[in-house]
Amino acid sequence: MPTLPERTLFGPGPSDVAPSVLEAMSRPVIGHLDPAFVGLLDEVGGMLREAFVTRNEVTFAASGTGSAGMEMALVNLLSPGDRAVVGVAGVFGERLAEIARRCGAEVAEVSVPWGDPIDPAQIEASLRGSPAKLVAIVHAETSTGVRQPLEEIARIARENGALVVVDAVTSLAGIPLFVDEWGIDVCYSGTQKCLSVPPGLSPITFSPRAMEAIRTRATPVRSWYLDVTMITRYWGAERVYHHTAPISMLYALHEGLRLVGEEGLEARWERHRALGEYLQSELVGLGFELLAAEGFRLPQLTAAALPGGADERAARKRLLDEFGIEVGGGLGAFAGRAWRIGLMGESCRKEKLDRLLEAVRTVIGHAV
Amino acid sequence: MPTLPERTLFGPGPSDVAPSVLEAMSRPVIGHLDPAFVGLLDEVGGMLREAFVTRNEVTFAASGTGSAGMEMALVNLLSPGDRAVVGVAGVFGERLAEIARRCGAEVAEVSVPWGDPIDPAQIEASLRGSPAKLVAIVHAETSTGVRQPLEEIARIARENGALVVVDAVTSLAGIPLFVDEWGIDVCYSGTQKCLSVPPGLSPITFSPRAMEAIRTRATPVRSWYLDVTMITRYWGAERVYHHTAPISMLYALHEGLRLVGEEGLEARWERHRALGEYLQSELVGLGFELLAAEGFRLPQLTAAALPGGADERAARKRLLDEFGIEVGGGLGAFAGRAWRIGLMGESCRKEKLDRLLEAVRTVIGHAV
Repeated sequence: MPTLPERTLFGPGPSDVAPSVLEAMSRPVIGHLDPAFVGLLDEVGGMLREAFVTRNEVTFAASGTGSAGMEMALVNLLSPGDRAVVGVAGVFGERLAEIARRCGAEVAEVSVPWGDPIDPAQIEASLRGSPAKLVAIVHAETSTGVRQPLEEIARIARENGALVVVDAVTSLAGIPLFVDEWGIDVCYSGTQKCLSVPPGLSPITFSPRAMEAIRTRATPVRSWYLDVTMITRYWGAERVYHHTAPISMLYALHEGLRLVGEEGLEARWERHRALGEYLQSELVGLGFELLAAEGFRLPQLTAAALPGGADERAARKRLLDEFGIEVGGGLGAFAGRAWRIGLMGESCRKEKLDRLLEAVRTVIGHAV
Repeated sequence: MPTLPERTLFGPGPSDVAPSVLEAMSRPVIGHLDPAFVGLLDEVGGMLREAFVTRNEVTFAASGTGSAGMEMALVNLLSPGDRAVVGVAGVFGERLAEIARRCGAEVAEVSVPWGDPIDPAQIEASLRGSPAKLVAIVHAETSTGVRQPLEEIARIARENGALVVVDAVTSLAGIPLFVDEWGIDVCYSGTQKCLSVPPGLSPITFSPRAMEAIRTRATPVRSWYLDVTMITRYWGAERVYHHTAPISMLYALHEGLRLVGEEGLEARWERHRALGEYLQSELVGLGFELLAAEGFRLPQLTAAALPGGADERAARKRLLDEFGIEVGGGLGAFAGRAWRIGLMGESCRKEKLDRLLEAVRTVIGHAV
């Protein structure tokens, strides 16, 4: 393989991966039905329950990236003609709506301008207008850096008889998330954000209520690859072959989750909170404008417009070429003028952050 | 991570992974839009074209296992109401038919008993009865060890105006396969068979004719995650973000394909042929019954009934527990009485095969 440059990853994901996780992936591959491997799967399931703070039996890692988890959540729950209320506040809300439409659902989008949180009252109004099979929302919108008022929206959805689907791709293990306590029915994530595992798997959990809705569907799930009922027969006690599990990626996830457990979820949330706030105050000091509404800012993903109308692309390229530091460019409404800076998992360390800030000072000093 | 037992993998996949491929996965993760990474993607695309023997521009690795590739092939080509003729000669043919039905297609199954090759005349009769959008067939049926008469079936399909979809999960880099020369429109594989890369990706290629059929669809592709038109914008020159590529798995695939190129495709096919024939003749000598029809036996996957009605499960467990050797159990019509022995990629080495045969002799000597 060609030599790869050294990078420190402060983009919207992937984040830096711990050496022990990289080492886990280099272990020899064993069979996906080997007793030693299925024992490891059981441990992954248990650690995922701890990370999601759930007792859901159906909790596993889907064999695809976070977007596969998104599609798995929707394609299993939605039948053609079902109504879905989707909170749209950025790229990933738009993606939820698009996938729900492809599932044949009638989609009601509840939209807000980029950078704003979704208004729970609007979700409620949409549900009162017409009942819905589900409400889907992105917890941590990676395109804007906004933390959505998930707890309140989930409560409203449940009160109105809708299932609650939550995208926790960027939130899991980075900010507080309580699947059972908040009444979430399906919650999925990605491995390459605050879990600091390489991209390729999507941790996902289904409540008994969600599984009952799937069991009583009138039509087959449109996707075979993402059919949770079949996949559950492999992850559960039956061990019925569905597709070959991505062995090495599951080694990596096992080790990544072990590190989360070793640190403790609350300590990990606090680390992200403290360093995220520090980053944001430093950026403001440098003349950046934070684009997420105050009170709803994610610590692990900061969208910030560059000072003085600087060319974000040129400055970002300098960070990469001269300092080996990756940050993300703005998307959609923020394209061309903003960065998205991730502080996730192993990238969220004080010494790395200090190097980032030093590099940003240099690059911005020249660019403004 | 817990210590894993040492295994030599002679099951139906995964196969043993070369040390340099394991090492590639332990490299630090860089961003999926990093210029260094997209350069590596270009190289993967080029090496996949060599492995598939195709000039198809749309050639890449789908972010899921071989079954995701199967679903990607069908969900992009089929619209509700389309007719699909599917060759069914084992588990993977059945899976093709099931996925095609979930895509809304009207499926005509052309079936043969387990162990037999599909009869091209039956495919032709089905196509003459009523035109079809596509013919789908498994090249190397992993559940029976049969090599299907692909070249002839592809020719018949094309002559009758149908697109040709081929499952090459177990055949790619193990037996001759010529995507362009044989007129195949979509061909997908898996990484964990004759490529000897861990499971998790699905190499796939689409002909210009297939892409034109997709471009002129009347309805959107039902799957967003597997929408080849969108994915192509990331793998192609535009580099538009679709989903985060599975970075570490793509490192592994890059190295696995480099090893294929270093050995040479023809030498690799010959290695599989020679050792597969040797295994099969030794098994017959031990009293096994080969279950695939003569003349259609795959060298890289042998389905064989145990001598004297021995309990396959107990004997297989002894191989695993006492020798650290994995073979697969029979499926479907072969369950309970047969093994499936894979000789794929790095597992297909004379010294490993000799150890396998020695262990089989010991276990069978006791079991009969």
